[in-house]
Amino acid sequence: MSEIYLDNSATTRPCRAAVDKIVEVLTTKFGNPSSLHEKGFEAEKEVEGARKILEKSLNATEGEIFFTSGGTEANNLAVFGAVNANKRRGNKIVTTSIEHSSVHNPAQELEKQGYDVVYLRPDANGRVLIEQIEEAVDADTILVSVMMVNNEVGSIFPVEKIKGVIEGRKSPALLHVDAVQAFGKIPVNAEKLGVDLLTVSAHKIHGPKGVGALFKRRGMRIIPRTYGGEQQQGVRPGTEAVSLIAGFGAAVEQIELGPQGDKITNLNWYLRERLVDLKEISVNSPQDAVSHIINISTNEIKSETMLHFLSSRGIFVSSGSACAKGKRSRVLREMGLPERRIDTALRISFSRENTRADVEELLLQLKVGIETLAHI
Amino acid sequence: MSEIYLDNSATTRPCRAAVDKIVEVLTTKFGNPSSLHEKGFEAEKEVEGARKILEKSLNATEGEIFFTSGGTEANNLAVFGAVNANKRRGNKIVTTSIEHSSVHNPAQELEKQGYDVVYLRPDANGRVLIEQIEEAVDADTILVSVMMVNNEVGSIFPVEKIKGVIEGRKSPALLHVDAVQAFGKIPVNAEKLGVDLLTVSAHKIHGPKGVGALFKRRGMRIIPRTYGGEQQQGVRPGTEAVSLIAGFGAAVEQIELGPQGDKITNLNWYLRERLVDLKEISVNSPQDAVSHIINISTNEIKSETMLHFLSSRGIFVSSGSACAKGKRSRVLREMGLPERRIDTALRISFSRENTRADVEELLLQLKVGIETLAHI
Repeated sequence: MSEIYLDNSATTRPCRAAVDKIVEVLTTKFGNPSSLHEKGFEAEKEVEGARKILEKSLNATEGEIFFTSGGTEANNLAVFGAVNANKRRGNKIVTTSIEHSSVHNPAQELEKQGYDVVYLRPDANGRVLIEQIEEAVDADTILVSVMMVNNEVGSIFPVEKIKGVIEGRKSPALLHVDAVQAFGKIPVNAEKLGVDLLTVSAHKIHGPKGVGALFKRRGMRIIPRTYGGEQQQGVRPGTEAVSLIAGFGAAVEQIELGPQGDKITNLNWYLRERLVDLKEISVNSPQDAVSHIINISTNEIKSETMLHFLSSRGIFVSSGSACAKGKRSRVLREMGLPERRIDTALRISFSRENTRADVEELLLQLKVGIETLAHI
Repeated sequence: MSEIYLDNSATTRPCRAAVDKIVEVLTTKFGNPSSLHEKGFEAEKEVEGARKILEKSLNATEGEIFFTSGGTEANNLAVFGAVNANKRRGNKIVTTSIEHSSVHNPAQELEKQGYDVVYLRPDANGRVLIEQIEEAVDADTILVSVMMVNNEVGSIFPVEKIKGVIEGRKSPALLHVDAVQAFGKIPVNAEKLGVDLLTVSAHKIHGPKGVGALFKRRGMRIIPRTYGGEQQQGVRPGTEAVSLIAGFGAAVEQIELGPQGDKITNLNWYLRERLVDLKEISVNSPQDAVSHIINISTNEIKSETMLHFLSSRGIFVSSGSACAKGKRSRVLREMGLPERRIDTALRISFSRENTRADVEELLLQLKVGIETLAHI
């Protein structure tokens, strides 16, 4: 059975360049980057090469990229690290109610510790407006953490305007942007966004699972979460995952926003157009969402039922976020959607590897599913 | 130039089985283990398969193995996680002064936070005696964290007796053992040791860099360091590094303590025997150290000078721990060695891949180095 993988916001297939680089490092450049001999330098060069690729890609400068074990670690380091470094300057944290759990749960933990956390709520389209951020940020705010693209519905947040708000309010707030779902899909320019901290992950852009990166603006201090060796300026100690880091770099080099984006935009439009034929279906993603994510509800078939049916036909999509494993979507709930729509939601997420034939097959099987599966 | 890699305590060459498994996962089993479709289950099976291999290897039971990004993260999670979970029961932490920095630095951080930390000092052979632990552990002690094998000199600590001491003292202390340098070299049996927490790492046993595991005794609670998705019972959230985890499992399956240990023991004996010919050289590792680590001092040539000379001849050894990158060894200082010996120390560390010819070449080049390099 052929596989139609439409769950690219959960994870992507590592590209050939990444796999080849990983194998090269594992088999020939296996030294410890901290070792002071040739075998160590060889490995260090791979890590630093990948760091340069990330710097260039995010428009960062030297010393601003720190590799982590993934988006979750980077988000935790950013949120806790910034709050702990900035805690004498205020007590308020501004975020949204539809962040990924690796920002949302740290925020809740900080709330338990006594911080005043404001969770801005999205509109029915999953959008958070800059006016809401303007209203929330004040002189007591020490951190603003907002995602660039929502992972479940694809809505784009006005992160490029937040820095101006913080400055306008004369707020001491640091700005963290979780760009995991934006990176490789829309331009992510750390310098231009004016962020202090920004998170990206390899496995959402055809790199391997187990590696991510945190951009930390030069000169800006955060408190580390991990204590150990002197790797990565002590901000993130531990022997570097050299093969994955090098593979991450190789995957980043394969990103071509223009042509890849156009291809995905065409698939998105085509899917939206054809979905109209399936009358029961609602689209939960806003029109101006990123084109690689489209969240729909069948309104008739439970998410899990449809998901398993499609899986049995070799088509892979998700209900909500993979990390929440079957729980009812917090994002759709916060958007105020009716229960029936939440319980029948599916997230279809494209990558540059998908084709129009994939969309055709999805549409066909969705139709079969709606006709044959038990309705709620 | 042929490469003679004698820095296996810094890192090892990933074995063929590990590399093959990593490639298999990256190319065909690339799903997100949390995804609820077939592509996710496939990946989950790889993670759970590796978990079972680790369980069996450490004599752990189901649900006791948690994968991390490496030894550093596992040690941090163990030390902070145990202290934070146990803090109402006492204020004292017992450890040694020659732990790896990923235990030592967390202990220092906890000391700053107000905990009473006892750093047991080793004798001139790098040994810490059970009597020292008996003396230190009391009813106020909430954590004992002691390594099983020292990473710089290879001394073996009496960890199997600690549980009895804790019970004898009616202490509420949890027991953490950093077994990174012991795993794959001497038997590590979590059940028999009676540990609550135990750390291992893949890249010291011919697995990849970027993955480790924490054994956490069933039913025992620690406070997580990372907040996010529901992966790994919430103890260590974040999308699993599936390829590395599966590669870790494959590497563990290649461990055969008996034959591999015998081979390394023979190399160690041969080296020790032949070192006698190089009269200036002192051996800093005790006679009863593990055989894969032998720490020596030339007493004549600075560590870095000799290390670079050997590297230029294709022989890779280290001065102290790789993670300390050129700093004077805390371990040798704590052992009370004279400065000259500390400044001229070299760590030679074997793996099952080394041969007698490697030792011959090392001895030859050490001799050349001593004869030709600038003496201190």
